[in-house]
Amino acid sequence: MKTKATFVRSLLAVAVTGVFGSALAADEPIQPIRPVQQVNLAQVELGKKLYFDPRLSKSGFISCNSCHNLSTGGTDNLKTSIGHNWQQGPINAPTVLNSSLNVAQFWDGRAVDLKAQAGGPIANPGEMAASHTLAVEVLSSIPEYVIEFKQVFGQDKVTIDEVTQAIAEFEKTLVTPNSRFDKWLLGDKDALTATELAGYNLFKTSGCVACHNGSAVGGNSFQKMGVVTPYKTTNTAEGMAGVTGKDADRFKFKVPTLRNVEMTYPYFHDGAAQTLTEAVDIMGRLQLGKKFTAEENAKIVAFLKALTGDQPSFLMPILPPSTDKTPPPKPFG
Amino acid sequence: MKTKATFVRSLLAVAVTGVFGSALAADEPIQPIRPVQQVNLAQVELGKKLYFDPRLSKSGFISCNSCHNLSTGGTDNLKTSIGHNWQQGPINAPTVLNSSLNVAQFWDGRAVDLKAQAGGPIANPGEMAASHTLAVEVLSSIPEYVIEFKQVFGQDKVTIDEVTQAIAEFEKTLVTPNSRFDKWLLGDKDALTATELAGYNLFKTSGCVACHNGSAVGGNSFQKMGVVTPYKTTNTAEGMAGVTGKDADRFKFKVPTLRNVEMTYPYFHDGAAQTLTEAVDIMGRLQLGKKFTAEENAKIVAFLKALTGDQPSFLMPILPPSTDKTPPPKPFG
Repeated sequence: MKTKATFVRSLLAVAVTGVFGSALAADEPIQPIRPVQQVNLAQVELGKKLYFDPRLSKSGFISCNSCHNLSTGGTDNLKTSIGHNWQQGPINAPTVLNSSLNVAQFWDGRAVDLKAQAGGPIANPGEMAASHTLAVEVLSSIPEYVIEFKQVFGQDKVTIDEVTQAIAEFEKTLVTPNSRFDKWLLGDKDALTATELAGYNLFKTSGCVACHNGSAVGGNSFQKMGVVTPYKTTNTAEGMAGVTGKDADRFKFKVPTLRNVEMTYPYFHDGAAQTLTEAVDIMGRLQLGKKFTAEENAKIVAFLKALTGDQPSFLMPILPPSTDKTPPPKPFG
Repeated sequence: MKTKATFVRSLLAVAVTGVFGSALAADEPIQPIRPVQQVNLAQVELGKKLYFDPRLSKSGFISCNSCHNLSTGGTDNLKTSIGHNWQQGPINAPTVLNSSLNVAQFWDGRAVDLKAQAGGPIANPGEMAASHTLAVEVLSSIPEYVIEFKQVFGQDKVTIDEVTQAIAEFEKTLVTPNSRFDKWLLGDKDALTATELAGYNLFKTSGCVACHNGSAVGGNSFQKMGVVTPYKTTNTAEGMAGVTGKDADRFKFKVPTLRNVEMTYPYFHDGAAQTLTEAVDIMGRLQLGKKFTAEENAKIVAFLKALTGDQPSFLMPILPPSTDKTPPPKPFG
């Protein structure tokens, strides 16, 4: 029922755009999120299972969804994530929602796309702590998976390339159109309150849109954290410098998307800002040299909360059981 | 679509029972699982959210679904579970599927019903490591939850009693009708293969049904683990004796349901048996004083795999975001 309603709303949004939306939206630095476009549905269904399958981790306990929880804005709402053996992660888990719109993946952009990203956590000893070999061995021991991989990819053997491709294809579906702000962009003038609209205007005139623009309201550039005033943190992440080796790239991070930002707390690469009020205040001072008044801050926060779109809606996947041949998980030692 | 199909199948099952099923099923020691009967749907929907909400744990990382994963047979498929701070749990997580049919909850029966059970893990320092006070404080800080609790229970204040009631009501929906064995019970003679049927006959004539009977194929009595030959384990769980204080109750555990047993590995209260073959062999020797041949074992295993029913099918719940007033999770110290 919900899926159908969402679909009808999507059609409606398209219809509205067709009539008078595009002209309006084109004048704005932020564009509406488009509903899911071309995807390979068979890969999506397989990828959804893999996304929820904790057997891709050494412990059998951690799945992609553990840290990029689709019930909670595509993230874990922790400062930094919990990995294998309860290891404390080095950085805040970015939301998977609308991540297909990012220019690159991870805070430092070290993965060129979702497919390249998907292989990372599986083999990271601090995250899922498995290996690509083990993941493939586990999946290959489960006949239902072997058959589904063959149906989807036409190959007899399961490969890590197929695993990450399917997960990435599922992740492409995790877009969140139809936020109230998007409805406003598409021509529904009543979709925003006066306060939210005032917040949007402040967001533009204060310079926030210099980095937070495009359909994801971010995600399309790398910027230094602490442009005007240095950012103080105990977090040791260095940003792009770790990838490029260039000193000029120190503390350059991918600008996070602000889509669904009400759900993706805490904020920044170190998760240091627990509330949107705090995050807006720090961003204003450090990036723009601007101290927002309490009233201005509240308006911007009101605008940001209008960026929450339709959350992905799907049936909880049922995973095929392991067999006598499946390597058992090793949660303890 | 899947939900509708399931519903149609349920109707069909009822129709079949009406015509000729009940007479057949009545002669058997195992009864078909009935589709979900009376539930309070508003409580179910609220309970589903709570079941998936990791904010009921101190870390903000562990939900009911972490150890009773509805993608994997309502359990975590680990010998013993992973709790707060990666603590190793003392006992194998029993499946939540069909748990409403159990005579009592937990392996030692210390909770009289699902509602009494639901409060346990939340406050257990080795599991979710929160407290009932903290859980209520978290939920009360989230307006969407406050409104939903008020809609459902008609009270202004959220209470732990309501929290556990809603979770229990959701859990009542987690029954798995329409296994091939149930179809056979209900009159579809082609639903089982000759091997599976032979396995069922062995299951009856060997004495397995003495404990594994009723609609859950278990779950309705407490029995000593190691009746004929003592069970050897390094696990320190004592069973019912821990509840009753009676020495006679040492190693008496609730007989687990065998519904969906293909999905609920590993087996026994200590999770020591990784495969069904192993579990059937040990049960035969220790409980019945019987050494099944490889052929007999395989037949019984084939029958057991016919006990997998329709898995719960529902939309992944979307949880309302925390607010500035919500106590932040404390995953590390």
